[in-house]
Amino acid sequence: MRRWNGWGDEATVVELPAHGQGFLESRIGAGQVLVDASLEQVLAKVLASRLPAHPLVSVEAEVRVRHARGQSLPDWLAMRSGEFGVFPDGVALPETAAQIRELLVWAQQHDVVVIPYGGGTSVAGHINPRDGLRPVLTLSLARMSQLLEIDEQSLIATFGPGANGPQVEAQLRAKGYTLGHFPQSWELSTLGGWVASRSSGQQSLRYGRIEQLFAGGKIETFAGTLEIPTFPASAAGPDLREMILGSEGRFGIISEVKVRITRLAEEEKFYAVFLPSWSQALAAIRSLVQARVPLSMLRLSNAIETETQLALAGHPEQIALLEKYLAFRGARAGKCMLTFGVTGNRQQNALSIKQAKRLLKGFGGVFTGTLLGKKWAENRFRFPYLRHGLWEAGYAVDTLETATDWANVDHLLNQVEDSLRNALSAEGEQVHVFTHLSHVYGEGSSIYTSYVFRPAASYAQTLARWSKLKHAASLAIVNNRGTISHQHGVGRDHAPYLPVEKGEQGIAALKALSRHFDPDQRLAPGVLLED
Amino acid sequence: MRRWNGWGDEATVVELPAHGQGFLESRIGAGQVLVDASLEQVLAKVLASRLPAHPLVSVEAEVRVRHARGQSLPDWLAMRSGEFGVFPDGVALPETAAQIRELLVWAQQHDVVVIPYGGGTSVAGHINPRDGLRPVLTLSLARMSQLLEIDEQSLIATFGPGANGPQVEAQLRAKGYTLGHFPQSWELSTLGGWVASRSSGQQSLRYGRIEQLFAGGKIETFAGTLEIPTFPASAAGPDLREMILGSEGRFGIISEVKVRITRLAEEEKFYAVFLPSWSQALAAIRSLVQARVPLSMLRLSNAIETETQLALAGHPEQIALLEKYLAFRGARAGKCMLTFGVTGNRQQNALSIKQAKRLLKGFGGVFTGTLLGKKWAENRFRFPYLRHGLWEAGYAVDTLETATDWANVDHLLNQVEDSLRNALSAEGEQVHVFTHLSHVYGEGSSIYTSYVFRPAASYAQTLARWSKLKHAASLAIVNNRGTISHQHGVGRDHAPYLPVEKGEQGIAALKALSRHFDPDQRLAPGVLLED
Repeated sequence: MRRWNGWGDEATVVELPAHGQGFLESRIGAGQVLVDASLEQVLAKVLASRLPAHPLVSVEAEVRVRHARGQSLPDWLAMRSGEFGVFPDGVALPETAAQIRELLVWAQQHDVVVIPYGGGTSVAGHINPRDGLRPVLTLSLARMSQLLEIDEQSLIATFGPGANGPQVEAQLRAKGYTLGHFPQSWELSTLGGWVASRSSGQQSLRYGRIEQLFAGGKIETFAGTLEIPTFPASAAGPDLREMILGSEGRFGIISEVKVRITRLAEEEKFYAVFLPSWSQALAAIRSLVQARVPLSMLRLSNAIETETQLALAGHPEQIALLEKYLAFRGARAGKCMLTFGVTGNRQQNALSIKQAKRLLKGFGGVFTGTLLGKKWAENRFRFPYLRHGLWEAGYAVDTLETATDWANVDHLLNQVEDSLRNALSAEGEQVHVFTHLSHVYGEGSSIYTSYVFRPAASYAQTLARWSKLKHAASLAIVNNRGTISHQHGVGRDHAPYLPVEKGEQGIAALKALSRHFDPDQRLAPGVLLED
Repeated sequence: MRRWNGWGDEATVVELPAHGQGFLESRIGAGQVLVDASLEQVLAKVLASRLPAHPLVSVEAEVRVRHARGQSLPDWLAMRSGEFGVFPDGVALPETAAQIRELLVWAQQHDVVVIPYGGGTSVAGHINPRDGLRPVLTLSLARMSQLLEIDEQSLIATFGPGANGPQVEAQLRAKGYTLGHFPQSWELSTLGGWVASRSSGQQSLRYGRIEQLFAGGKIETFAGTLEIPTFPASAAGPDLREMILGSEGRFGIISEVKVRITRLAEEEKFYAVFLPSWSQALAAIRSLVQARVPLSMLRLSNAIETETQLALAGHPEQIALLEKYLAFRGARAGKCMLTFGVTGNRQQNALSIKQAKRLLKGFGGVFTGTLLGKKWAENRFRFPYLRHGLWEAGYAVDTLETATDWANVDHLLNQVEDSLRNALSAEGEQVHVFTHLSHVYGEGSSIYTSYVFRPAASYAQTLARWSKLKHAASLAIVNNRGTISHQHGVGRDHAPYLPVEKGEQGIAALKALSRHFDPDQRLAPGVLLED
C-alpha cells in the first residue's frame, strides 16, 4: 500500500544506520523529532465537497487526502503535521480520452478548477489545490496506464499518460524493449508527468531526456484535442511537442503519449572511480563528456557528498578498508566519487571503458571495479525512502537542482551550497549540504544539491526554516545564471523565480499561450506562471 | 560575384556532361531551352520605392532585384524570365541589434512590412515580397556575420545572425573548432536562417540538427528583445528556443545566435557501399542507425538515383569498370549506393567502420573503399550549381523533401515518386524522379526526392508544370503521414499544407503567438501561417 504521508510503498523501509546518525550529529547536532498526525486526524479535517455529483468523480475523504499533496518538503511537513490546509473537492479517475473531455466540459459548466495528476511525485507544488472560491477537481490519469501499441520498425510505443515507471518498463521489457527513462521518482512518477514537467532520467546520457523520447501524442484542451503526429524530425514550423513539454498542465491534459524506445542492450555495467580532488574531478568529467565517449551514465559526487555517502552506507568496517586502499592510491580527504555506466554492445562498451579509464587516470582517478557501481544501480531508487529514516532520527532532508554551462558550474555550485549553509545562521543552526553532478552535457551540467537540517520545535517553525533555505538557494541559482530547474519543473514553488530566466518577453509569450488554451485559467492555476 | 539570377558564385560552373545529357534524353526526351532575361531588362522593370528615406535603407534598383527572390524553382523561373512581379521597396543592412530595433520602430511608424533576409537561399518562398498596399522592407543580416565570443569551457560560440556557412566555419576553425552544420546550401545560407527555418546539415548524425546546436540568443520583436539564456538543459517550462526555431521570421528578427561547437575531430572518412536491392538497402540503413553505431553521416540513394548519379558523373569508362566490379560482386541493376562517414577519434572510428562493414555485409553490401566517399565530400556543395548546367541543356530540376517513421518510409517514398512521375502525364510529359535518404534517425528517415522535367514552350507554362508537380507531391506527403518539410521549412510554398500535420489546434496556437508578437502582422506575412 502506498504511504499516504510520505514516499513509496509502506513495505519498503530505509533506516538511517547508527554510524550515519553519529555522522550527522557531529555535523549539525542531535536530531529533533516531531510528532506526526494520524490519517484519522487528517480525515476529520476534510470539509464537505463543493462539487456536484459526477459518476467519474469520487468525493470520498481518504481519496481526497491521498491526492492533496506531492512530495516537496512543505508537502511532507503538511502531511506529517496533518495541516493540509486545502484538499481537492474531488478526484476523477477517467479511463479514456473521451472521459477527460467530458470532465473538461463539466468543469467549465460548473466553474471548476482542474488539476492534472500523474504520480503525485511533484517536488515543486504542481498538484496542490489552492484556496479559492472555485471548487477543485484533481484529475488523476492512474487508470490510463496501458501500453496501447508498439511500432517495432519505428521503435515507437504508445502509452496511456498514467503509466508509471515500472508499468512502462514491464510492458516494454516483455517485448524486448526499454524506454530507458529512470528519474529517481521512477517507482511512482508517470509518463504524462515526465512530459508535462520535462523530466530527465539517470541514463539520459544514452537515452536522452524526456524531450528526446517524447515523439507525439494527444492533449485535451478546452478548445479541442491537440494531436501531435510522430516524425523523426521536421522543419515544419515550431515543434508543438516543445509547447507541451514543460507546460505543467497549463495548456491541456495529456491523454496519450508516444515515446521512442530502444531494444534492450546486450550489456550494461557501472563503475566507480575516485578522483583525488574536486578540481581534478570536475576537469575529468567535462573532458569525458566533451570527448563524446559513448557512456550511458555519469555521476560525480563532490567531496562532502562522497564523505556523506560513505558515512551513511552503514558498513563502517568495509568502508574503512576502502578508504585505506584509496588513500594508498592517492585519493585521501577531499576525494570525489565518480560513477559511470556503459550500456550497449560488448565491443562498444569495452572501447568506451578503455577510453574512459585512460582519460580518468590522467586526472588521478583510482578505479574500484564494478562493486560500488552495482550498489549504485541496486539502490538508485532508494534515496527518497531515506527521508523517512532521517525524519525518524530527527532530521529533515530536501534536495534542489539546477543546470548551467561548464564555465559556471563550479561558481554556481559554490553559491548554492553557501546560500544553504548560511541560511539558518541567524538561528544558530548548521545545515549539512552536499552536491553531485548527475546529468552532463557537452555544454554544461546539472547540479543536484541535498541539504539536511534540524526541524524546529514546531511544524510551522520548521516550514519557516525551509522557506529561508529554499528562497536563499533559489535566488543564488537565478542570480548566477542557473536555470530554476533542470529536472523537477517549476510548479508553484519555482514560479516566482522563473521570470529571471525567461525574461519579460518570454513570460508574456507563455501567458499568451496559456490564455489561448485556457481563457478561464481553469487548469492548474498558479503553476508555472504566477497569476 | 554572386549570381543575380541563380545559384552561387559566377566563377563556379558545373556543366551537364554529354553522357548525362544522353541519359536524360533517353528518359524524358530532348531538352527545351528558354531564353533568359538580362539584368538590364529586369532593372528597367523596378518601380520607384514607396519607402520614405532612411539612412540604413537602400532603394537602389539592383540591390532590390538581388533581394527579391530565393532559390525555389518558381524563383528560378522568375529570375530567368525577368518576370519578378514584386520587388521589395528597399533593403536595409543593419550592423547592430540596436539598428534592427530602430528599423522595427520605423517600420511601425510608416506601416511597412518587414522581411528578414539571411542568405536568400530559401526554396519555399520565405523571402519573396507580396503585392499589397504596404511598402516592403527586406532586412538583410549580411553585415552581422562576426564571431563575437567563444566560451571554450562550455563550447559555445556567439555569432551575428548573418554569418554564412564559410564565415561560421572559417572563424571557428581558426581556433580549432567546428559547428558541424553543413546543409547543401552551406556556401550561402546563414546561421540566423538555419535557426529560423530549422535547418539540418549533412552530418546531423554526429552534430545534430540546428535544434540541437542552437543554444540561445536574442530576438528583436515589436514588444522588445527576447533574450534566451544558455543552459545545457532545463525543465523550467516550455523551451523558448523551440518557439524561435522554425518561426521563419514571424515572431521577430534574430539578432544574435549562440551555438554549441565541437573540437575538430582527429579523423574523418567517408565510404561508399553498394547494396544489391532497395529492400536490402532500406533494411540495412535502418539496422545501422538503430544499432547506434556512432557514424557521422549516412546517405542512401535509391536505384534510380544511383543509376542517375553514375550516369551524370561524367567518366563513362571508369564508371563502366566500377559497374563490372559491382556486378561481379552481386550488385547489378537495381543496386543502391550508400555513403557513410565516421568523424571522431581513430580508435572509435575504427570500431565504427568495423561494425558498419559487418552489418552491411549481412545485407549483401559491396564495399568500394573511400574513393567515392571522398568524391561525395568534395562535391557535397556542388549539386545546386548543376541546376545551371541542366537548364542550359534544356532541363529543369527541383527537389523536395519530407520525413516519416521507418514503418512508413518505403510507402511514402513511393507515393511521392509516383505523384511526380504521373503529374504531367496529361501533357504526355515524362518526369525523371529519384530519391535518397540523407538524414536518418532511430525513429525514421528524411526522404529527399529530385525531379527533372522539360520546360514548356513558355515560362508561364513551365511554371504551371511545376505547380502541378509540387502540388501533387505535397498532397502525397501530407496525406501519407509525411511532414511537409524535414529541412527546408514552410515559407509560403508549403504553408497551405501545414494545417494537415499541425491540426486545427496547433495552427490556432501558432497564430496566437504570431498575433502576440506581431499584432499588425508586419513580419513576413503569409510565411509559415497563411493569412
